Parts: sequence; C-alpha cells; structure tokens
Amino acid sequence: MSFNKLIKKYKKKKIKIGIVGIGYVGLKLLLQFAKNKVQVLGFDNNLEKLNMLNKRISPISYIKNSEIKKTSNYSSYNNDYSKLKECDAIILCLPTPLKNKKPDLSHIINTLKKIKKYFKKNQLLVLESTTYPGTTEEKIKPFLDKKFLIGKNFFLGYSPERENPGDNSFAFKNIPKICSGYSTKCTKLCLILYQMIVDKTVAAKNIKEAEFSKLIENIYRSVNISMVNEMKMISHKLNIDINNVLNLANTKPFGFTKFEPGPGIGGHCIPIDPYYLYWKAKQVNIDAKFIKLAGQTNEDTTNWVINNFFKILTKEKKIAKKTKLLILGLAYKKNIEDTRESASKKIIINLHGKLKKIDVSEPYIKMQNSVVSEDSIFLNKYKINNILITKNIIQKYDVVMILSDHDCFDYNLIKKESKILIDTRNRIERKNRFYKL
Amino acid sequence: MSFNKLIKKYKKKKIKIGIVGIGYVGLKLLLQFAKNKVQVLGFDNNLEKLNMLNKRISPISYIKNSEIKKTSNYSSYNNDYSKLKECDAIILCLPTPLKNKKPDLSHIINTLKKIKKYFKKNQLLVLESTTYPGTTEEKIKPFLDKKFLIGKNFFLGYSPERENPGDNSFAFKNIPKICSGYSTKCTKLCLILYQMIVDKTVAAKNIKEAEFSKLIENIYRSVNISMVNEMKMISHKLNIDINNVLNLANTKPFGFTKFEPGPGIGGHCIPIDPYYLYWKAKQVNIDAKFIKLAGQTNEDTTNWVINNFFKILTKEKKIAKKTKLLILGLAYKKNIEDTRESASKKIIINLHGKLKKIDVSEPYIKMQNSVVSEDSIFLNKYKINNILITKNIIQKYDVVMILSDHDCFDYNLIKKESKILIDTRNRIERKNRFYKL
Repeated sequence: MSFNKLIKKYKKKKIKIGIVGIGYVGLKLLLQFAKNKVQVLGFDNNLEKLNMLNKRISPISYIKNSEIKKTSNYSSYNNDYSKLKECDAIILCLPTPLKNKKPDLSHIINTLKKIKKYFKKNQLLVLESTTYPGTTEEKIKPFLDKKFLIGKNFFLGYSPERENPGDNSFAFKNIPKICSGYSTKCTKLCLILYQMIVDKTVAAKNIKEAEFSKLIENIYRSVNISMVNEMKMISHKLNIDINNVLNLANTKPFGFTKFEPGPGIGGHCIPIDPYYLYWKAKQVNIDAKFIKLAGQTNEDTTNWVINNFFKILTKEKKIAKKTKLLILGLAYKKNIEDTRESASKKIIINLHGKLKKIDVSEPYIKMQNSVVSEDSIFLNKYKINNILITKNIIQKYDVVMILSDHDCFDYNLIKKESKILIDTRNRIERKNRFYKL
Repeated sequence: MSFNKLIKKYKKKKIKIGIVGIGYVGLKLLLQFAKNKVQVLGFDNNLEKLNMLNKRISPISYIKNSEIKKTSNYSSYNNDYSKLKECDAIILCLPTPLKNKKPDLSHIINTLKKIKKYFKKNQLLVLESTTYPGTTEEKIKPFLDKKFLIGKNFFLGYSPERENPGDNSFAFKNIPKICSGYSTKCTKLCLILYQMIVDKTVAAKNIKEAEFSKLIENIYRSVNISMVNEMKMISHKLNIDINNVLNLANTKPFGFTKFEPGPGIGGHCIPIDPYYLYWKAKQVNIDAKFIKLAGQTNEDTTNWVINNFFKILTKEKKIAKKTKLLILGLAYKKNIEDTRESASKKIIINLHGKLKKIDVSEPYIKMQNSVVSEDSIFLNKYKINNILITKNIIQKYDVVMILSDHDCFDYNLIKKESKILIDTRNRIERKNRFYKL
C-alpha cells in the first residue's frame, strides 16, 4: 500500500487500533478512540480486569461503567495478542517503573518479545509510556530493524500520555497531544492517528525531544512539590502556617504557581519518572542534582511527618504502645483509589509494631474489586482494618491522621469526634489538639 | 486623633506620604500615589538622581520622563529627611542586599537611626523591602517601642513590593498588594493606604506570613530557573535542544510552567532574596537545600557557559589569546539597564586577561547617565568598550556572544556578520558556527 493510501485509510478512520496495556492510560485512550467510532482492541494480561471489562464494568473508579457500555460496539478486550495482526496501529501503554531507582523497561521489552511476530508491513507502532530520551530508538527500533525498513514500510512513533488521574477539569480531547516519529512519515501518521481523538496535536522535531518533554513536565512537579515541602518544614519551625504563605504568594498574577504541601509525593509518575532522566544523565556523567534532591526531600517529608507524629504523642502525654491510630486515606492523592508509592503506606510500614493499633479508612478501595488485591495483601500483612468512619468508630481511636483528603470524608464529623487530629493536607485549622503537619 | 478620624483622613486622601528610597521600587510607588492625587515626598541620598528627578528626567529606562512631569504637582524629591515630620505615612523602599551570603539590613537600620527622630504620633510606617520573616517585628519595632504604643498611637506594617523590572504586561494597579500589620489597626491602615493605588489589597494574617510570602515567590523563580538550567546542561550533552523540549512541555494546559534557560540568574532579587530565608532557616537548624542548590546551580550555569565558550574556541581552532570577543548585553535580563549580579559581568571577570580583547554592546547603559557610574567603573576596570553594533564593528570580532537578548538588537545583522555566534538566550537556530548554550 502506498503511503498516500495509508493516510487516506487513517483519515477515513477505516483502521483498527490495538492498545497494549489497558490500565489508567490505555483504557482512557481506548475509550477515546471507541467514542470516536474507531475500532479498537484492548490487550492485557490481567484476566480479572478483562472479565470486568467484558461485563462492561469499569476497573477504575473515575471511569464510569456507562462509558464502557456505550463504547462497546467499537471496543473489545482480550489477551490473545495474535489479534495484533489485524491492527493498523499498535499503541503501547505499558508501565515503566523503577528497579533499584533505575529504569525498568522489562514490561516493554517482554511485551515486544511476545508480540513482534505479529508485526506486519505498514503498521504504525507508537509508545505512550514515560521514559528517558532515546528509549524508542535504542530499545524498540532494534525489534523492527531486521524485518522492516522503518519509516518506509513500517512506522514508529512516540506520543507521551498526559493522564492526570482523578482530574476531570480537562477533557482528554482538550489536552494537546505531542506526536513524534522516527521519520517524517512516521510523525505524519502518528499525528493523523491522534487527530481522531484530540483537538490539537503538536509535532515534535524528533522522538528524543518528545520523550524528554514528558519527563520535564514531571520533574517540574516533583521539584516544586518537594521544594514546597521543604518550605513547610521551615515554616513549621518558625511557627508560620505555610498554607497561608502560599495563598498570599498565589495572589501574584504572574511568576508564581502554587503547589500543595503534603505528607510526601506518591503515585506512579512523579516519584518515579524523574529518575529516568537522572539515570540517563548519569550515563553522560551529569549528576542531575535537582532530581536527586527532590527524591531525598520527598523521603525527608514523610519521615518528618512520622517524627512530628511522635512529638505530638509526647506533647499530648500519650504512650506510643498504647496509642490507637486511624489513618484517613491510603491513596497517594485525593479522590482516587491508586495507592502506589503512597505516603500512607510508607507511614504504616514505619509505624508498624510501634503503636497499639493502626487502621485506615480508604473508601476508594472497597469500591473497586479489581484493584483491591494488592491493597488487601498490604492491609493483611500489617493487620490493618479498612473501616468506614462513623461517630462511634472515630471515638475508638486516640489519634486520627488525615493523609489523603478525599472529598467524600465527612470532615465535620472528623473534627467533632477526633480526640487528637493531625492534618497533613490543610483541611483543618490549627487549634487545641488539632495539629497541622 | 482618634483612629476613626485617622481612617477618614486616609479615605479622603488628605494625607502626605513619605517614601524613603526612590529606586526601582520606590519611584514606581511614588508615581502611583502622585498619579492618584495623593501628596508624596520622595527621599533619597543620591544627589544625581534627585537632580534628574527635579528636572523631570526619569533615572530609569522603562519609566518615561512624561510620567515624572505629569505627576509633578503631587510629588517632590529631596534629601531633607526632617520633612518626614510632615508625613502621615512613611514607606521604606530600601535595598536589602547580601553580605557574605547573609542578610545585610544596614540600609534599613542606618536609615532608621537617621530618621527615627522625625517619627511622630499616629504615623504609619510600612516596610516594602524583601526580607526574612520576623524582620519588621525584630529589627524595626525596637526603634519605635520606647516612644510609642505600637498599634495604638503609632502603626507598623509590611507590604512586599512586587515590581518586575521591564515588564509592562501588568499595570501596577492590577497587581494585588499584600498588606500586613503589627495589630488589626495597623493592618487596616496599611490596607487603606494601598487601596488608593491598587485595585485589590490582600490582608495577611500577620507580618511574618507577608514577609515569607514574598520570599517564597522569589525562591520559586530561583529554583525553577536553576532547575531548567540543569536540564539545559543535561540536554546539551544529549544533543537535544532544551528550548524545543520546553516548548513541547509548555503545550500542556495544566501542571507545567515554562521557565527560560539562560547564562545564569542576575538582578537584585532572584539571586539574593532566597538567601534571606536560607539564613533564617539556619537560625532554626534547618538546611534549606533547594535554596542552596539553586544558588550553586546558578554559579555552575555561568561557569558551564565559560567552559563551553573555550570548547567552541578549540573546535573552531581559535587561540584564546588571539580571540576578540564581543558580548551582547551587560544587563541581567533583556530590555533593562540593570547590570547588578549579571551573568555578563561574571563572565567578563572570568575571561579577563585570557583573551585578546573583550568589548560589550549594552545600549541601555548609554541612555541613562545616572545609572552609568558603577557600570563605567566596571567597564574601565576591565578595559572594555561599550560599542554600538554595526556591520563593520561586528566583523572586527572573532566571536559574538548573546548574553542579554535586548529586543533592540538587530539579530539579522548579528547573524549575518558574526564569524562565530554563541547564543545563551535562544535567539538563533543552531547551525554551522552558530552555537547555542
């Protein structure tokens, strides 16, 4: 097929798309294509998730079942990767975690090993995963080189995901999508693919710049949240409320952006992605000091919360071994169920065995069976109950600590019934036995 | 006079204001009051500046002579501090520099020693200078304590200046003004004072929070500019253009703010103010690591430009001792004449004696006689001519380096006539003998 014919096929939306990895990023993306009446196949190894999706049940709290249902004519979910042969475009939405603080590309590499036999001429392969500059060309291209002339009879691109879990203030289609490719033709095809689902696409000059751009977005957040947490620790010592300071600074109409202090950064992006660039910089003998400091400060912040928790116990004449603690929120941020890398989990691990009892209230976990598994294992391991808060329940605990400030919590009840209340999310005002950390 | 009567007097604008220190901040402030038909007296020790102002000539490039002229019915400029007795409100707009990287409050302290004898009952004293939290109460209040009951018969406030030199995109009156006071009455009077000249005032809960808020604004800028310069040094090594990367990231409609990389931070705020908090944090045994790293990275960035300058000479087979260098811009940022702490000056000091010749083109210096003095001394010391660029002039130099990218430079001419061009401000595209640092 000539490239022009291929373009026409894409423009008519007469293509089939395969999305490999249907987690937070992949599923959201899949639904966008299906909503726009493009046939899309979702691939995943998680049988439980596939089961749910095939029953039209959403595995993610902020994606409604109705969204799965109404797109069902254009979508299917399975683990039969041989169906990738039917696809015109294949998009990889696979996790890129860390292993010993170094990039772990095993999900991508292992998947490519498994699926490369299904690649065929004129396909477009796009990576959406966050990774260091150079990955697509250094790690993915070699899987294609023997079989294809990339840029001529096979097309390779990179388009970073920009998912912000739990945030519905920007619709997917309103977030510009960066597209890049190994050749001009690759970039062109990548642009046309995403033009089906977003209002604005942006062509990068090359893949590396697109890869780097996603990292710099998350490095910016990581550095700024950590820096604000450093400011919090200073202002606490000076007996100044950092939240008031930030609100004042935030009245400046230029040159300032407010970040929220908290108990430490969590999630699968901000604490992880910056280390991808850190590692790449080390390869060329540069020590990316801001990334390192942000990572260290993040750990310091969580430890600072723990240390101050014990200081408060002392001040309140409580003995740790006799203290029952209720932690509000296990998720890494509010209004979502994702507990990966959360400060709550780090604090539980640290406090385990030092108190009489620790329980949590994390309403988002109960709601979603598919995601419960790992969290259940965690809670069982540390003998923690996940409870729904009521007046009687709160009164049973000596200390209540707000770690994820879900909007569904009844803060009036919490303020009224807590004996000692510690808030790391600026939900309460400081007063007698109400502490802000 | 009762407090209510005092309030009424302020609300009728029947007050006289004394502004001590009429530099970038004080003069701008003075003009706002005068424009709003409030009588205002400007005090300064710089006779040359007073002379200019009394001849209705502006000492600052981005303040027009016409602004001085048209406000002359409501303003006067002098060094007779005894006239402060006539003033209802006194605003201190004095420099707060560093001495050995520690706060140097000598301008404030020495001025207070000189003017305290002119303080009288019912006056309002407001500090606008950027300083560490606690300054107003710890350093200024003691000058008043013996003579007055502060908050009752004398009023003390703090309101941080938010001047952004050379930026005219926000009019003074559109920038909310943070007001704080030693007591509720102090805050109230401070608010009413500034309501004469701005659309929105914001009351801080206490002075410390207001002091801290100004520092955090500049710490945010310092950290982010330095971090972006770290990213520049990494991307340069990876052969990736950081400006393209930043432009891509900047297409994200949330969670990212673009900062411009450059040859190192200069000016009288961003490189200095953060150390005020660093010092204060040290007093309570906290090492403000982000502030320290931002400062170090800023020095590293300027040194990196110097090192790469020599690498380029080597690559171009030039011998340093035979090289004539033309530096474009001595100011710390574009379109202003302020050269304080500028990267250009640091680079000149470093390169002095290592090349055949260094000259600069800084059109903003010639325009303003009052500010020329210190710069003249600097240029004379290093035997540097300040030249206006023409075709013939540019051709005389082996290397041209853009350090401040004033809009008035003719970049087409510069690109056409430079033998080797080094750009630290993203004004050119990389190509043969055109380098971006």
